[in-house]
Amino acid sequence: MSNSTPKALDPHSKPHISLQRCPDLVLISDTPKGRGVFATSRIPKKAVLDVCPVLVLGLEENARHIEKTTLYHYTYNWPVTDQHNFKHVAQALIFGLGSMFNHSLQDQNVVWERDTEKLVITYRAARDIEPGEELCISYGNHLTFEDTDALPDEVEEEDGTDHLSHIQID
Amino acid sequence: MSNSTPKALDPHSKPHISLQRCPDLVLISDTPKGRGVFATSRIPKKAVLDVCPVLVLGLEENARHIEKTTLYHYTYNWPVTDQHNFKHVAQALIFGLGSMFNHSLQDQNVVWERDTEKLVITYRAARDIEPGEELCISYGNHLTFEDTDALPDEVEEEDGTDHLSHIQID
Repeated sequence: MSNSTPKALDPHSKPHISLQRCPDLVLISDTPKGRGVFATSRIPKKAVLDVCPVLVLGLEENARHIEKTTLYHYTYNWPVTDQHNFKHVAQALIFGLGSMFNHSLQDQNVVWERDTEKLVITYRAARDIEPGEELCISYGNHLTFEDTDALPDEVEEEDGTDHLSHIQID
Repeated sequence: MSNSTPKALDPHSKPHISLQRCPDLVLISDTPKGRGVFATSRIPKKAVLDVCPVLVLGLEENARHIEKTTLYHYTYNWPVTDQHNFKHVAQALIFGLGSMFNHSLQDQNVVWERDTEKLVITYRAARDIEPGEELCISYGNHLTFEDTDALPDEVEEEDGTDHLSHIQID
């Protein structure tokens, strides 16, 4: 986000990220859980659902401000390294459907993968998704409300990298 | 964003919003203006570029917190009416490419339209867009940095509704 005049550029000649979105998705406002994303057609396992640019929030502004707002429920853990080479878990906002997927631990059908260099998250189908199904992720260690789906023996990990394992779907 | 088990639902039987995105878009990280969205193919005038859900921020939490963070550069004006039927201009975050489009006053090629009921913004091509062109909007009255593209006689309106006129592209 900055000011520029549109310029012709050969996107194929520069490193670029394809902003894919599955065309078979709709947003429904009045579900029992508020807004949710649903499939309108069958979506095969591993298909890309959405590629979302992220904005990594400053550690200090997050602690001082963002954590005190409703936005805190929308941020994802994001590993960062400071100028002294210390690692921190920052928070990131997801500019795409990643901010709209509801949560399920028992029957999540969406997996996601961070690209910390390119600052994007790619969401994929964890399994074949049928028409009419809601797309749900596991929020993992950033669950900030009571998890009514959780079974007693399901425990979320508390480190900043648990989500990465969710991309293992082969 | 809440917790739920994926459920089969006939999206066609309920009011729904198609989450369209133009398939010919890429994100490039290292432009002179930072990240930007570019066309890889010719995109015809009026084509939908992206449909973005929005999150309307509370007036108080915006004034107390969000305005003091980098996020303030990413929010859009959003008209709201309070319980006493008073109108206010709130701020909204855009969960999609609307948060990634750079700015141009001289040669904007993207127009957008708010749907305050459905809480989405739809972005469309303002004119035919050629392969390799960057997609740029006019930030309008929420321009928070020096506008190097602006001509001396170009003045931004200061009300909360100026952007709506930008959708007139016929």
